[in-house]
Amino acid sequence: MTGVSVGDLAVRFGCELRGDSGVVVETVGTLANAHERALSFLANPSYRHLLASTAAAAVVVAEDDADAVPGVAIVAKDPYLTYARMAAVLNPPPVARPGVGAGAVIDSKAEVDPSAEIGPNVVIGPGTHIEAHAVIGAGTVIGRDCRIGKATRLAPNVTIMDAVIMGARCVVHAAAVIGSDGFGIARGPRGWERVPQVGGVIIGDDVDVGASTTIDRGAIEPTRIGNGVKLDNQIQIDHNCVIGEHTVMAGLVGIAGSTTLGANCAFGGGSGATGHLSIVDGVIITARCTVTSDIDTPGTYGGVFPHDDLRNHQRSVARFRQLDKLARRLAAIEKRLKQQENTE
Amino acid sequence: MTGVSVGDLAVRFGCELRGDSGVVVETVGTLANAHERALSFLANPSYRHLLASTAAAAVVVAEDDADAVPGVAIVAKDPYLTYARMAAVLNPPPVARPGVGAGAVIDSKAEVDPSAEIGPNVVIGPGTHIEAHAVIGAGTVIGRDCRIGKATRLAPNVTIMDAVIMGARCVVHAAAVIGSDGFGIARGPRGWERVPQVGGVIIGDDVDVGASTTIDRGAIEPTRIGNGVKLDNQIQIDHNCVIGEHTVMAGLVGIAGSTTLGANCAFGGGSGATGHLSIVDGVIITARCTVTSDIDTPGTYGGVFPHDDLRNHQRSVARFRQLDKLARRLAAIEKRLKQQENTE
Amino acid sequence: MTGVSVGDLAVRFGCELRGDSGVVVETVGTLANAHERALSFLANPSYRHLLASTAAAAVVVAEDDADAVPGVAIVAKDPYLTYARMAAVLNPPPVARPGVGAGAVIDSKAEVDPSAEIGPNVVIGPGTHIEAHAVIGAGTVIGRDCRIGKATRLAPNVTIMDAVIMGARCVVHAAAVIGSDGFGIARGPRGWERVPQVGGVIIGDDVDVGASTTIDRGAIEPTRIGNGVKLDNQIQIDHNCVIGEHTVMAGLVGIAGSTTLGANCAFGGGSGATGHLSIVDGVIITARCTVTSDIDTPGTYGGVFPHDDLRNHQRSVARFRQLDKLARRLAAIEKRLKQQENTE
Repeated sequence: MTGVSVGDLAVRFGCELRGDSGVVVETVGTLANAHERALSFLANPSYRHLLASTAAAAVVVAEDDADAVPGVAIVAKDPYLTYARMAAVLNPPPVARPGVGAGAVIDSKAEVDPSAEIGPNVVIGPGTHIEAHAVIGAGTVIGRDCRIGKATRLAPNVTIMDAVIMGARCVVHAAAVIGSDGFGIARGPRGWERVPQVGGVIIGDDVDVGASTTIDRGAIEPTRIGNGVKLDNQIQIDHNCVIGEHTVMAGLVGIAGSTTLGANCAFGGGSGATGHLSIVDGVIITARCTVTSDIDTPGTYGGVFPHDDLRNHQRSVARFRQLDKLARRLAAIEKRLKQQENTE
Repeated sequence: MTGVSVGDLAVRFGCELRGDSGVVVETVGTLANAHERALSFLANPSYRHLLASTAAAAVVVAEDDADAVPGVAIVAKDPYLTYARMAAVLNPPPVARPGVGAGAVIDSKAEVDPSAEIGPNVVIGPGTHIEAHAVIGAGTVIGRDCRIGKATRLAPNVTIMDAVIMGARCVVHAAAVIGSDGFGIARGPRGWERVPQVGGVIIGDDVDVGASTTIDRGAIEPTRIGNGVKLDNQIQIDHNCVIGEHTVMAGLVGIAGSTTLGANCAFGGGSGATGHLSIVDGVIITARCTVTSDIDTPGTYGGVFPHDDLRNHQRSVARFRQLDKLARRLAAIEKRLKQQENTE
Repeated sequence: MTGVSVGDLAVRFGCELRGDSGVVVETVGTLANAHERALSFLANPSYRHLLASTAAAAVVVAEDDADAVPGVAIVAKDPYLTYARMAAVLNPPPVARPGVGAGAVIDSKAEVDPSAEIGPNVVIGPGTHIEAHAVIGAGTVIGRDCRIGKATRLAPNVTIMDAVIMGARCVVHAAAVIGSDGFGIARGPRGWERVPQVGGVIIGDDVDVGASTTIDRGAIEPTRIGNGVKLDNQIQIDHNCVIGEHTVMAGLVGIAGSTTLGANCAFGGGSGATGHLSIVDGVIITARCTVTSDIDTPGTYGGVFPHDDLRNHQRSVARFRQLDKLARRLAAIEKRLKQQENTE
């Protein structure tokens, strides 16, 4: 690994430097364990006590913390963002190595840009376009009539079903599935019958889809994922959902069918929303919370129950189930006291 | 795409027609966005206001809504079911194209019906039978001693482990896993030891298994999924479970080991059940609810906490943890007032 | 299947035998359905009533139940553990069949021990070592610079990304993903930017990873899974987590980033923990419970709400949202009664 001088980094990202601009960093490190050729950062104040003793060659910090850095301080307004960009200089994302791997099976009616990298044992269906500099990981299967945009990277063992249109610079992690049938069933006299799912999926630019996340195709019109959406692992997006631009979701979130989320929303891990809802821009849902009705007002919404000592929790749950009765008993007392007061 | 006349559809599915029976539909559309060659439907009353302005050539509706259809009204008792069937005429499910794809590795002791379609890079183990008109998607791996029934379709990148018996006309979506080891461990002096999982999985006819859903093999006897069961994405069915016929589950449901569900149950998204339970036929579990004891009575059971303003939720949670104390304080007041009353 | 005498089993695992030591067992069975050549066991007292009528040739039981066994009683201190070991004699885990399957693509810079079994269509990247007697299932993809330890078995369609170090005798089930990028994003002026994820994953010996479980690589330092950890299906382990030795998790658990779990913890199905927490050894989290703060004391913690009749639950939820007000009303009454008392 070749290094880069902190002076170069500071100039490139417009940071003030306190210390020797010739110091070279080769890798990234945590404050606690960085070695003397590493770049580190301080973004979370709870790690501030580690600053004094860090061995890191340079630390990206906010103005107020600069004096506490033992090595070179790289002063930035947003240390985490600046660190992210500098770390990407040291660890650039993989670049497509043009060519087709052994065992890949590409339909004669598919179009693959010669600059794209097609991994071993990939399968690509008819009518599908793989654009310039795209990377398709080993074992990934892409159906028919899809488009994989410029420089988009699919990890190994991803499955893209039919009619999935994906923009540029997306990243799809391993075992993710995009374009599987929505869960559309109608009850018939002899059991459930499948409702054809013919809408595809339209995904914008710069979208991330986590490992083992599933995004269903729409029933009639496409499921839509806006530009810049970031989805973590094990998420389920049902058919007909519309996810607004730059909305993010942590792992294990579930969004039920036909729900529309605004832009710049954030869903904590394990949270979710029931179907046919509309949620405005700028809504934050904390971990494990379930949205069950429309949200018209930006803000932060919660619903989790923190862990408790098991016995205390069980007592609380037992009371919870009597809550309506408890409230009625309370009201009865209030009424009685009111009467008492009036008669006094 | 060739079209079909609404007259033909009406005759085929026994519907009354109001309008020109020669009108041809070629595709399906939503009321809002259907074009003039599209078939639409109205099933959810909240979309009724869209009826007057739809451009759809024909709309499947209930009797009461027929007069409001601007184009041809196809009158049906159950508009959604009838729409589903008509949509399947316009969008028939894929049919097996007999043959074996490039890179497929079929064990010499496997039996594959010549009418089956085996995708590229599929792997099939010894003792496994693939029946007539089955479709095995690219990259799918099937272990030993399995049976894939007639016209059953496995999507790409599915994994079927050993001893999985699957009926006819099933659909398994991408990245699903059937027959993985159940989570059977016994604590030994030096750590957890694996308990051999030797039961297989027996799946009936017309079963759907969603993308990234996992169904474990039984510990000793097989895990059983009844005819007509429909499972959405990201569901976990533990070892030894028995799922009754025509039971349905939305995404992210978890059913713990050795639990038996009746027929015609419905589990909402993210709901679940703990292990070793017995649940009768006809039980509906709403989204995110957790079943923790046997259910002997058909009906609807809930458990979700709707999202709330974060601060209000946090206040409620704080009080929830005091609930037993609050209830005791309430009882103390009641007792005191009772005494007061007696002494008056 | 060749059998083994119960005498041999008793000697091998140090059990007392009551009955004919020459009886041969060939398979395992449940008490209810075992046939006359089957070995069964009784560990869960709720199945004791099945003992009298079992057709099993032999039953592993605790001392107190030995007299009730109709066939041979194999008396063990821990019947479940002893059964597990005897069942493993009858059903030994699969052994590597050395060789490389058709369609496997192994990078010239990978090292594969000649005793390892590489399934069909496997892909192995440069710098990766596959150690002796390892088994790599069909369609599995392993990235660069990984190590798969001795006798570790990967099921089909597993994805191991780059820089994953895995110990001996592990089992990874189908569709699991290890080493995918952590969910590291920083907000920039035009949207979220990816923070490079360069830590790998270090997994100890004897670890099980369930089907469709995902374990993310660390952001800077590796995510760590201790020796003997057992993870069920559909679990998400975020970047930088440290999971202590012999900790177990049932299905659908989510552990958010940078959380450290102690040794010998147990997480019930669907439970989880938020990020940046520290949890000591010996903590038990019951199903569906969410840990939201550090746990310093070993013990059992809960948080689930059992299912309830839907209407009663809805009434309780409505009251729950008024809980702070109800508590204030109660306090007001108490205050008033106190004043009343003082004035009497």
